[in-house]
Amino acid sequence: MPNKILDDISHRRYNPLRGSWLLVSPHRTKRPWQGQQEGPGKIDLPEYDPKRCACWLNCLQCYLCPRNSRASGDTNPDYAHTFVFVNDYSAVKEEQADYAAESGSCDDLSSLLLRAEGVKGKCYVLTFAPKHHITLADMSAADTLPIIETWTRIYAAHLASTNPLSQVALGLGLVQQDAPPESVVPPPANQYRYMQIFENKGAAMGCSNPHPHCQVWTTSTLPEEPAAETVQMGKYRTEHDGRHLLADYVKLEMEKKERIVWHNDAFLVVCPWWAVWPFEVMIISKRHIRALVDFTEAERLQFAETLQEVTRRYDNLFETSFPYSSGIHQAPLEGTPEEIENSYFHMHFYPPLLRSATVRKFLVGYELMAEPQRDITPEQAAAKLRDCGGELYRKKL
Amino acid sequence: MPNKILDDISHRRYNPLRGSWLLVSPHRTKRPWQGQQEGPGKIDLPEYDPKRCACWLNCLQCYLCPRNSRASGDTNPDYAHTFVFVNDYSAVKEEQADYAAESGSCDDLSSLLLRAEGVKGKCYVLTFAPKHHITLADMSAADTLPIIETWTRIYAAHLASTNPLSQVALGLGLVQQDAPPESVVPPPANQYRYMQIFENKGAAMGCSNPHPHCQVWTTSTLPEEPAAETVQMGKYRTEHDGRHLLADYVKLEMEKKERIVWHNDAFLVVCPWWAVWPFEVMIISKRHIRALVDFTEAERLQFAETLQEVTRRYDNLFETSFPYSSGIHQAPLEGTPEEIENSYFHMHFYPPLLRSATVRKFLVGYELMAEPQRDITPEQAAAKLRDCGGELYRKKL
Ligand SMILES: O=P(O)(O)O[C@H]1O[C@H](CO)[C@@H](O)[C@H](O)[C@H]1O
Ligand SMILES: O=P(O)(O)O[C@H]1O[C@H](CO)[C@@H](O)[C@H](O)[C@H]1O
Repeated sequence: MPNKILDDISHRRYNPLRGSWLLVSPHRTKRPWQGQQEGPGKIDLPEYDPKRCACWLNCLQCYLCPRNSRASGDTNPDYAHTFVFVNDYSAVKEEQADYAAESGSCDDLSSLLLRAEGVKGKCYVLTFAPKHHITLADMSAADTLPIIETWTRIYAAHLASTNPLSQVALGLGLVQQDAPPESVVPPPANQYRYMQIFENKGAAMGCSNPHPHCQVWTTSTLPEEPAAETVQMGKYRTEHDGRHLLADYVKLEMEKKERIVWHNDAFLVVCPWWAVWPFEVMIISKRHIRALVDFTEAERLQFAETLQEVTRRYDNLFETSFPYSSGIHQAPLEGTPEEIENSYFHMHFYPPLLRSATVRKFLVGYELMAEPQRDITPEQAAAKLRDCGGELYRKKL
Repeated sequence: MPNKILDDISHRRYNPLRGSWLLVSPHRTKRPWQGQQEGPGKIDLPEYDPKRCACWLNCLQCYLCPRNSRASGDTNPDYAHTFVFVNDYSAVKEEQADYAAESGSCDDLSSLLLRAEGVKGKCYVLTFAPKHHITLADMSAADTLPIIETWTRIYAAHLASTNPLSQVALGLGLVQQDAPPESVVPPPANQYRYMQIFENKGAAMGCSNPHPHCQVWTTSTLPEEPAAETVQMGKYRTEHDGRHLLADYVKLEMEKKERIVWHNDAFLVVCPWWAVWPFEVMIISKRHIRALVDFTEAERLQFAETLQEVTRRYDNLFETSFPYSSGIHQAPLEGTPEEIENSYFHMHFYPPLLRSATVRKFLVGYELMAEPQRDITPEQAAAKLRDCGGELYRKKL
C-alpha cells in the first residue's frame, strides 16, 4: 500500500544514490502562474481580468502592489518600504499531519531505499519597494536599508531560544514580540532549523512577478546546501587551528586581487574560484559575522551599498535588467554551539547570462549528469564586472 | 601572479565549501550559438548564409546533416544511420599543456583554497539519424538499435586495457581497431577515466541544433555525479552482503508498482522515489549490467524498445516534442576492480516541463541555494506516464 499521506504533506526524500535529500510539496501545484513560458505557446502578457491597481503605474492585479488584494482575500497595506506576508502558495506549512515511515512486505528495502521525513515551515514573501517596475539596481543604499532591517527582524523572530544568537537579537531589541510586521508570528519554541532568504529575479530565473521581491522559506530541516557548507566549514576549522574557511578566503582574495569585483570596509564582492555560473559572485563579510543579527548599524548600511554595487554592475554588464537567483547563507536558527560559531555570513548570486542580454549559459546534459561546466573563467568574469562600475546605464526609475 | 595557463586549458576547480569539483573550459567561448535566446532579443530562426543543405528537407546549413560541411572544414559523409565526429568546439581536448599548482606568497592558503587539476579528454557528437527534423520518438526500435551499437563501440574503444570490461569488449569483437567510424581514435593507454553519454533535447534544455543527436564526453577525471554514485553504490554493497543498490531498488519497485512507468524483460522504467524534475524517469537494467559491453544482443534491442517507450510517452504527455536532458551512467573506463563490479547500468531523464507544453518547472532560488524542490510527487508523475502509452500522438515523421 502506498503511503497516501505523502500526497498531502510537505516532506523530504532521500536519494541513496547521491546521498542527498530533496523537498517534496505536493499541494503546491495549485499555485497560479505568471512567469516565463517556454516554446510555441509563449505569451508576452498573461491574461487577467483588467482591474485598476492601486500602485501609481496602474499595473494589472499585481498581488504585491500596495492596497491590492491577494488570492487569500487579504488586502495589502499602503506600505512605504517593505511588506511581508505568508506566501499564499507556500511550499511548506506550519501545520500538517505527521509522517510515519511506510511499512509493508518489503520492510527492509523500504526503510533503506524509500526514506522520507516530514518537513514543516513557513514561506514569506517580502517586497522590496511599493513601486511595481523597479529593481534593486534602481534603488539607493538608503532605500535598500529597510530590506536588510526587515530580513534581520524576521531572522531574529524565528531564532530558537537555545541559539546563542537569540541573546544578541534580544540585546538589539529584536525580540520576538517586537518583530514587525504582524504577519511574522514566531513559531512554537525551537521548531525551525533554517531560514533561507532568496530572490529569483527575471523570467529566465522563474520569477513569476516583476514587482521587486524576495522570499524567505523557514524549515524544520537543514537543507542540503547549507548543510554541506556547515560540514565543510566545521571541518576546515577543526583542521586549521580554528580559522574560518571564508575568513582565510577573504584574506587570500584580498591579496590575489584578480577575482575581486569590489569591496568596502565590511564586505568583499568576489567571483569565487569555484564559481559555476558565468558571472557568479559572492558577497562575503570581512570580519566573522555569523548571521544578520551580528551586523552593526554601519555594517547594515555597508551591506546595502554592496547590494547596490552588485546589482548595478550586473545591469551595466550587458545593459539589461540582469536575471539572477541570489541567497543568503548564515547561521541556522537552531543548531549546536559549534554550528552557530562556525557559520560565516555570505550571499551567493547565480546569474544565467553568458554573452549578452539574450545568450545564457545552460547547465544541462553534461552538467546535470556529470559535473558543472563553465566557459569563461571567474578571473575573466571579475575583470568585466570591475569595469562596469559607476552610474546605472539607464535612467534610474 | 595569476596562473595564466588556466585561461587556456580545460581544468577542474574544487569548491571547498561544497566539497565538490567543477570543470572549466576557457577556450570554449568561441563556439557558435544557434539555440534558445532569452528575453526581448528572442529570434525564431537564426540567421545563416542561405545554402542548400544536402538533407531531403533542404534545411539551412545544419552541420549534422549528411554531406554538409562543418566549421572544421570537414564534410559529413552520406550516412544512413548514425555519424560520429569529434566536436569542433570540444569542452575538453586530448592535447594540452600540463598544469602545475600556482605558488606565491600565500602558499598555504592557495593550496587549500585555490585547488585545480588539468583535465584531458575528448568530446564526440553522434547523430541519431540522417533526417534533420525527427526525434527518437519518431523512430522505430529497429532504427534506434544502431545508436546503441555505436555507443557500445565508442565505449569499447576507450576502455582502459586494465579494465576487466576490455576483455568482454574483446570477446564481442569490439576491439579498438574495429571501432567504427575512423573518427573514434583510441586514446593513449589508460588515459580516460570516464565516458559520459548525454542528450540535450529541445531549446529549453540548451540544445542548439534540432537535428537528433547526442554527445559523448570522455575525460581523464571521474566527474562529480558518477563519482558520488560510485561511492554510494560501493558503500551499499559493503553494508548489505554484496547486494547492488539498484538491484534491490528494481526488486522493491517491481513489488510496489506505484512508481513504475513501463518495463520489459530486461529494463524497468521508473519515476524514482527521489526524482527532482517533475517527470524525471530512470531506466534501470533488471539484471546486473555494468556497462554497454555487457549487453546481449537481445538486451540491446530491448533497450532500443525502452528508449522508444520513454520518448513516445514523454511526447504524448503534453502532446508536444518533450524537452529533456538524458544521460547514461555505467562503469568507468578505468577504475579499481571493485568500482567496475559495483557499477550498475542506468539512464537518467531530466525533463523540465511541469504542467503543459509551455509551463516548466524552474529549479532556481530555493533549489540552488537550499535544496531541490519538486511539486507533483513521483507517484503522480508515474501514473500520468503510465496512461500515455500507445501510438505517438502525432503522425510519425
Ligand atoms: O554543446 P552544446 O549543445 O552546444 O551546449 C549545450 O550542452 C552543453 C553540455 O551539457 C552545455 O555545457 C551548454 O551550456 C549547452 O548549451
Ligand atoms: O515561488 P515562485 O516565485 O512562484 O516560484 C519560483 O521560485 C521557487 C523557489 O525557488 C521555485 O520552486 C519555482 O519553481 C520558481 O518558479
